[in-house]
Amino acid sequence: MNKRGFASDNNSGVHPAIIEAISKCNRGHVTGYGTDHYTAQAINEFKKRFGNETNVYFVFNGTGANVLAISTLSQSFHSVICPSTAHIVVDECGAPEKISGCKLIPVHTPDGKLTPELIKPHLHGFGFEHHSQPKIISISQVTEMGTLYSVNEIKAITKLARHYGMYVHMDGARIANAAVALNLPFKAFTVDAGIDVLSFGGTKNGMMMGEAVLFFDKNLSENAKYIRKQSAQLFSKMRFVAAQFLAYFENDVWKENATHANKMAAVLAQKASEMGVQITQKVEANGVFAILDDAISEKLLQEYFFYPWDENRHEVRWMTSFDTSADDVKHFCARLKELLNA
Amino acid sequence: MNKRGFASDNNSGVHPAIIEAISKCNRGHVTGYGTDHYTAQAINEFKKRFGNETNVYFVFNGTGANVLAISTLSQSFHSVICPSTAHIVVDECGAPEKISGCKLIPVHTPDGKLTPELIKPHLHGFGFEHHSQPKIISISQVTEMGTLYSVNEIKAITKLARHYGMYVHMDGARIANAAVALNLPFKAFTVDAGIDVLSFGGTKNGMMMGEAVLFFDKNLSENAKYIRKQSAQLFSKMRFVAAQFLAYFENDVWKENATHANKMAAVLAQKASEMGVQITQKVEANGVFAILDDAISEKLLQEYFFYPWDENRHEVRWMTSFDTSADDVKHFCARLKELLNA
Amino acid sequence: MNKRGFASDNNSGVHPAIIEAISKCNRGHVTGYGTDHYTAQAINEFKKRFGNETNVYFVFNGTGANVLAISTLSQSFHSVICPSTAHIVVDECGAPEKISGCKLIPVHTPDGKLTPELIKPHLHGFGFEHHSQPKIISISQVTEMGTLYSVNEIKAITKLARHYGMYVHMDGARIANAAVALNLPFKAFTVDAGIDVLSFGGTKNGMMMGEAVLFFDKNLSENAKYIRKQSAQLFSKMRFVAAQFLAYFENDVWKENATHANKMAAVLAQKASEMGVQITQKVEANGVFAILDDAISEKLLQEYFFYPWDENRHEVRWMTSFDTSADDVKHFCARLKELLNA
Amino acid sequence: MNKRGFASDNNSGVHPAIIEAISKCNRGHVTGYGTDHYTAQAINEFKKRFGNETNVYFVFNGTGANVLAISTLSQSFHSVICPSTAHIVVDECGAPEKISGCKLIPVHTPDGKLTPELIKPHLHGFGFEHHSQPKIISISQVTEMGTLYSVNEIKAITKLARHYGMYVHMDGARIANAAVALNLPFKAFTVDAGIDVLSFGGTKNGMMMGEAVLFFDKNLSENAKYIRKQSAQLFSKMRFVAAQFLAYFENDVWKENATHANKMAAVLAQKASEMGVQITQKVEANGVFAILDDAISEKLLQEYFFYPWDENRHEVRWMTSFDTSADDVKHFCARLKELLNA
Repeated sequence: MNKRGFASDNNSGVHPAIIEAISKCNRGHVTGYGTDHYTAQAINEFKKRFGNETNVYFVFNGTGANVLAISTLSQSFHSVICPSTAHIVVDECGAPEKISGCKLIPVHTPDGKLTPELIKPHLHGFGFEHHSQPKIISISQVTEMGTLYSVNEIKAITKLARHYGMYVHMDGARIANAAVALNLPFKAFTVDAGIDVLSFGGTKNGMMMGEAVLFFDKNLSENAKYIRKQSAQLFSKMRFVAAQFLAYFENDVWKENATHANKMAAVLAQKASEMGVQITQKVEANGVFAILDDAISEKLLQEYFFYPWDENRHEVRWMTSFDTSADDVKHFCARLKELLNA
Repeated sequence: MNKRGFASDNNSGVHPAIIEAISKCNRGHVTGYGTDHYTAQAINEFKKRFGNETNVYFVFNGTGANVLAISTLSQSFHSVICPSTAHIVVDECGAPEKISGCKLIPVHTPDGKLTPELIKPHLHGFGFEHHSQPKIISISQVTEMGTLYSVNEIKAITKLARHYGMYVHMDGARIANAAVALNLPFKAFTVDAGIDVLSFGGTKNGMMMGEAVLFFDKNLSENAKYIRKQSAQLFSKMRFVAAQFLAYFENDVWKENATHANKMAAVLAQKASEMGVQITQKVEANGVFAILDDAISEKLLQEYFFYPWDENRHEVRWMTSFDTSADDVKHFCARLKELLNA
Repeated sequence: MNKRGFASDNNSGVHPAIIEAISKCNRGHVTGYGTDHYTAQAINEFKKRFGNETNVYFVFNGTGANVLAISTLSQSFHSVICPSTAHIVVDECGAPEKISGCKLIPVHTPDGKLTPELIKPHLHGFGFEHHSQPKIISISQVTEMGTLYSVNEIKAITKLARHYGMYVHMDGARIANAAVALNLPFKAFTVDAGIDVLSFGGTKNGMMMGEAVLFFDKNLSENAKYIRKQSAQLFSKMRFVAAQFLAYFENDVWKENATHANKMAAVLAQKASEMGVQITQKVEANGVFAILDDAISEKLLQEYFFYPWDENRHEVRWMTSFDTSADDVKHFCARLKELLNA
Repeated sequence: MNKRGFASDNNSGVHPAIIEAISKCNRGHVTGYGTDHYTAQAINEFKKRFGNETNVYFVFNGTGANVLAISTLSQSFHSVICPSTAHIVVDECGAPEKISGCKLIPVHTPDGKLTPELIKPHLHGFGFEHHSQPKIISISQVTEMGTLYSVNEIKAITKLARHYGMYVHMDGARIANAAVALNLPFKAFTVDAGIDVLSFGGTKNGMMMGEAVLFFDKNLSENAKYIRKQSAQLFSKMRFVAAQFLAYFENDVWKENATHANKMAAVLAQKASEMGVQITQKVEANGVFAILDDAISEKLLQEYFFYPWDENRHEVRWMTSFDTSADDVKHFCARLKELLNA
């Protein structure tokens, strides 16, 4: 048996309904590269949720999605303003810079969230050829710190962007967790809030692999298909990612998964907090950040996967996922309590 | 029911044993990004076949594999000598140039195969800073024209490369078809023939997706893991590609699939030939190239998928795959005969 | 005293009037990066010759000019169709691929010149994401083989390009030699013939350094200033290149220089021909290509600089320049004769 | 007559001795691209000052120098740690990211100077493929804030870098100003202090254009010549930059120029300070940073060039140069006083 844990929502397997969908679509020949009817249907499901103007491009993974989104909306002399904790800054080995050629401008935030006030000092040098030209603001929903933007917070950012002729990208690797936490349809806090391009994640919420890049204005996605191919993100047997998304949306699998993951995080945070553990960020989705003595972390790590976050302040990150069980949380907390009381 | 056809070996689905392996590995938590035991086992299977010094990097698709192989072995001021029909030249939307920065030098060949004689005129300018420096020779086995290199032909190329301090990359998107056609172990015509880096394909021979880049000298692959991540080819739930390769090797699924596909191509070529259709390339694996009147092609395309190859000379390409049935070939040939005799 | 020769038109020094202009503009402070009045004046001189809609960007060298032109008109998934002898193919160490990300499609030509017939076989795959999208046709005037396009030949190419929504770039490193050979104003065979962007060379015709990239449609050059800066081609003390162009145009220095260089080439070709030396290309500007026994080349090279061109066929290249003297040609030919008769 | 000013040390012209050297080297033919004897001599002058192991590559401008230095020492998956005020961060339109592919990590500093304490928090993730790998620390001497590193401060940084297998790049656009301010030979605070690669600037201290990239270890510069060519920084008529450097070193023109510029800055700062103007950074070379009411700045700008620096805090920058006269400073200060007292 494998060790279980709270390292990442991608340590989980795949939801059974999605595995089944993969098996089921494995019949006969269909044309490749997204010209099949599974893909057409899956795109349709996205249009139902995000509007008919939505242009959908499936890719393999989150880095591929973010790179496609950014490269399509930018030229190499542009810059991308983003929180210093953004996945595109710290977890993609420089893929956005390498592939788009753009400069990333990392902004320090207390909670992983940009605000107009944090962004404004970086909005200068427009038209001045010595400076990378600010063109994209990139935010994550849920953020890498487990926090959420409200619709109004997003609108404040997209309004600012519009004023400067800039675009807003949302990294939605955990967008399902955001939707259930906000109790809002996807549309409300994306296209309706002024987002231009969205990386819609599936992998971290029970899919095997597969993300979708959604452009909400056809004019913006004109080159996307070439950029997807040139960045090696075009899947030949596309039906196998399309079928996953179909199952993901059918019977609200995505919702069930995300609701459960969020709940497990809330329980975990609540219990840890009751033991006196300091929780450092609001627990708004499926991530919990906590301060833990190194000695305790070390012992806990022998039995459960999780990541240290900020070693200087002894901060750790616990992620829950669709398949975190109530027992997982219970046993983990029991062990934590044991160690704290030792 | 879907239309069947001979368009590409990736129009097929997935071999049942591989679908089953995907379902079976979907249990519990494992760490992500290739640190799991499925991946370790799959790497081991490659080492058994290619030698213990082999360094294995799984990626999503063929373009990703080729780009990783080339980028890892080159600097941007290098050039890559390859047949003008190579996948890296015509089917990757410029990914190799974009991501490695290298110049591709396409060489015209009669049959998709490079030879020392064809390569030598391009081996000049070494040390001359005005010229991209020749560094990689890239060959495909099976070639894009359905032809095969013998072991001696490969050795002649790798010997030449060695002499000039160059590397040889093999695009093995259809390497299984080559191995069964040559009736040789993989090792004999790759590492033992002097190949430095191999794109080992699975997708075109019955896998869902997944290719492996094999470096046969540890010193060459030092940076591969960073380049894989930076080119967005690192799979988080890696077990799902590793498990496919495990099933692919178990019970020689790869061999059974490739043997069948090659046989179907031979039958198809034989029958078409008997009808007087001109076959333009040796049929050595699972591809058949034929000259066909446009009017006939057009009618045939209404019932079967396949690609025009060289429209100027009315050449078409028919690919067979692991799931091409004897009936598929029979009915296709019957219809072809009908049209020819009409 | 330095050895003289026929290696390249950039082995020469600088025309005295241009050296003087450099000294003369060295007075007082002017703002940097092209905001000074010398630059404004020089741009104006270009507008006089190419029309008021011309947008002018000065850069350091020919590679810089070509890269700026190509990068500004393309996206990384585009391809550039050009003769296989083009400077961008063989003499820029892969700079166009590296910086624009585009694929170069080298076309074999007998004389360095593209024609619609040579281009057409490469005009396919539009809209097909697997292929780099043809976007630019690049021609050199004078070509690297010393030959010239007539106005009608250029128009045939630009008309074809327009039909496919493509652009035409002209590498005019030796455009002055072309203008005097054609006895036409610059405008007649560039903007008026449908060229979209021109690399206008000065260095090879008596300037110290400095080239201008001219965009003939404002919409095309929108991003040029950022791309120039990002490709490290923005000169801080811009007046020193602007002043050179002012002197270059004043009193038709450019014309005098190019006329002389062309004449010297004609004389050299004529004399060599009379000695029975085979001249392999039409001598239409300042380059002479000749077949010469290796033994003779070797001896000649001890006294004069020049380059072997195609070693397989014993072809050499002799370039004349603005400061090639009648005596240079006379002595060179005398020595050549001596060697031929030995 | 041109308006004079304190905008940038590149608003000046060229030192007369250097203009003269340009004219003087304009004789006869020499081979191009740096194979001439002027270049050999100039390289030799650098070796005299930096040691025989120094490898010298001339380029056109500062951005070209920095890009060559960084690209040569890095792979695209590396990161470059630098002050947030660095020229490579704010003044090169993203050239380092675009051309090297690397991530830049901008570090906030009070005075433009990195320290081990400021660097250390960014030294993590080594070997972890999700993170750009820290490989280069880049410092400027003089800094963009007009401040200086002592030899010991540099050694502390290079020691830290060595410990982590990293390299240290020095942007020496104003290295002459540093050398005279420190009263040390160039060698003492570069190669002898552990610097690996230096951008040695000439343009900002009285040259027309021309910078040199110095690699202090032959193994590091192996690819530099190809990267220089591929980044369009190889000058064909190289003698014209080499001759400038020869004149720059002869009779210590560089020293005279830099000494004067520094002195003018000191006088300016002293006088402004006496008028009660707040000087925000130590004036250690030729830059003065001051707080000035916007209304006063505006009026002063009508007569003199200079740049606002940080508009939020009303900070301006005044640069002096080799040709700033005592009268320039006197009149400027008189006008400033007038405005302050108005």
